[in-house]
Amino acid sequence: MGAVQARMESALSRLLPPAHVAPARLHEAMRYAALGGGKRVRPLLSFAAGEVSSAAPERLEVAAAAVELIHAYSLVHDDLPCMDDDVLRRGKPSVHVEYNEATALLVGDALQTLAFQLLAEHRLADEPRAQLEMVKLLAVAAGSRGMAGGQQIDLEATGKTLALAELEFMHIHKTGALIRAAVLIGAACGKPLAEAERAHLDRYAKAVGLAFQVVDDLLDYEGSTATLGKTAGKDSKQGKPTYVSAIGVPPARELAQELRADAHAALAGLGSRGARLAALADFVVLRKF
Amino acid sequence: MGAVQARMESALSRLLPPAHVAPARLHEAMRYAALGGGKRVRPLLSFAAGEVSSAAPERLEVAAAAVELIHAYSLVHDDLPCMDDDVLRRGKPSVHVEYNEATALLVGDALQTLAFQLLAEHRLADEPRAQLEMVKLLAVAAGSRGMAGGQQIDLEATGKTLALAELEFMHIHKTGALIRAAVLIGAACGKPLAEAERAHLDRYAKAVGLAFQVVDDLLDYEGSTATLGKTAGKDSKQGKPTYVSAIGVPPARELAQELRADAHAALAGLGSRGARLAALADFVVLRKF
Repeated sequence: MGAVQARMESALSRLLPPAHVAPARLHEAMRYAALGGGKRVRPLLSFAAGEVSSAAPERLEVAAAAVELIHAYSLVHDDLPCMDDDVLRRGKPSVHVEYNEATALLVGDALQTLAFQLLAEHRLADEPRAQLEMVKLLAVAAGSRGMAGGQQIDLEATGKTLALAELEFMHIHKTGALIRAAVLIGAACGKPLAEAERAHLDRYAKAVGLAFQVVDDLLDYEGSTATLGKTAGKDSKQGKPTYVSAIGVPPARELAQELRADAHAALAGLGSRGARLAALADFVVLRKF
Repeated sequence: MGAVQARMESALSRLLPPAHVAPARLHEAMRYAALGGGKRVRPLLSFAAGEVSSAAPERLEVAAAAVELIHAYSLVHDDLPCMDDDVLRRGKPSVHVEYNEATALLVGDALQTLAFQLLAEHRLADEPRAQLEMVKLLAVAAGSRGMAGGQQIDLEATGKTLALAELEFMHIHKTGALIRAAVLIGAACGKPLAEAERAHLDRYAKAVGLAFQVVDDLLDYEGSTATLGKTAGKDSKQGKPTYVSAIGVPPARELAQELRADAHAALAGLGSRGARLAALADFVVLRKF
């Protein structure tokens, strides 16, 4: 995991515009937002999924960077005063605090654009057609019927009590869609998979995506700001429905374990090629930050 | 022109998510932002450039929609309080006024994503490789070294006096890059062009892009809010450098005519296939709104 994280840091640093190129302040702020932190869960998933299809690391690092830039943009916009209004991210001041709101807005916008640029300008699949599929996958995952849509559902849910099914619907969009894209785009960098193998990955990604969110809710409830590198207890203070508020701590812990087991079960058909994905499902559920 | 505008309205309406699909409020706001207004200058340019390469209108409308969605997203974000803080757009309340700031942020984000989705999921070129080139073209034009970068330069220039060359540099990014993309992406929907023909289009696009901005500055100075459908005199009130403030009204008018002549000259090598582009250069310079 450490090797992939280090590789991603260096790949992102290379793929982001240099801080001295005009407009320098925008580029500096884009680098501030995307470098030097984060668990890189999505890139880890892309690399692990790439093991299933024997994908080359040179392709995986670019594809994973595209997914991670979408994630980074969403955090920058999410922290803005009109959204979650958070001043702390990855243990540092949020982008709009370190720079200003207008720059943070443009940073998010430009990080999103760069994600699609990366998928178009590097060779990431044997066939250009397959690469266009990656662009589509990422766009659908990030857009109004994916991550951005999940944010909107989240906005509208604040202050309300959601049923478990509604909470799940929200998170399948808000976090799950991009995690699914990280897995499928990683796999798409390698040899074409059989339909059944893709279905296994899809089921795995859905379970891991939800598990990630359940654990996030538990950590937000139990963790400290110092450990998390972001403001702890924020969700409940803002009246956001969470798995903890919906079903309580012990059932949320149980649910995370069930999803972990489901993720493992989904990998059964992939044999040893799924070993890294299995380890990541454990990491997602057992992490403390 | 009216036929292309009507065709674009209907294409955009079909390509945007329906307002009744969840998350309904986000989709409704995306449609509010992108439909029912605008001169559709960029789509007009795409269609006119498509005449040069005999592109099919079924492809052109999708490619032009992608460019127009990038433009629409930039307007939504540009109107936000942390940017230009404008309450009026195309004669209607801005998105953040009609909805709220958080929704306007997500509307812009999701419109940008949809632009790339459209370029990936429809067949727009004979070869998938050429279509990946379109994705790249649009991303470079919209990103930190194109439109978003121009916005950042604009932010930093507010309250300053810029030399004519600096003003031009800002506008080549802020408006010019996307106008160039509209022309080149439109042409890319048809038969491959010779290198020289592409160079003609590029020179044309650069001239028209700058002419568009010079005329915009003149209209902002001379026009009324009712005619423009957006707040008139805004730029000078906000201390933004414009062609009017940099060189004065008569020289700005002269510059617009020079750029119009340059646009026409660039088309000379294309013969009758450039007739529509020539007419558009006239429209851009002679328009009153």
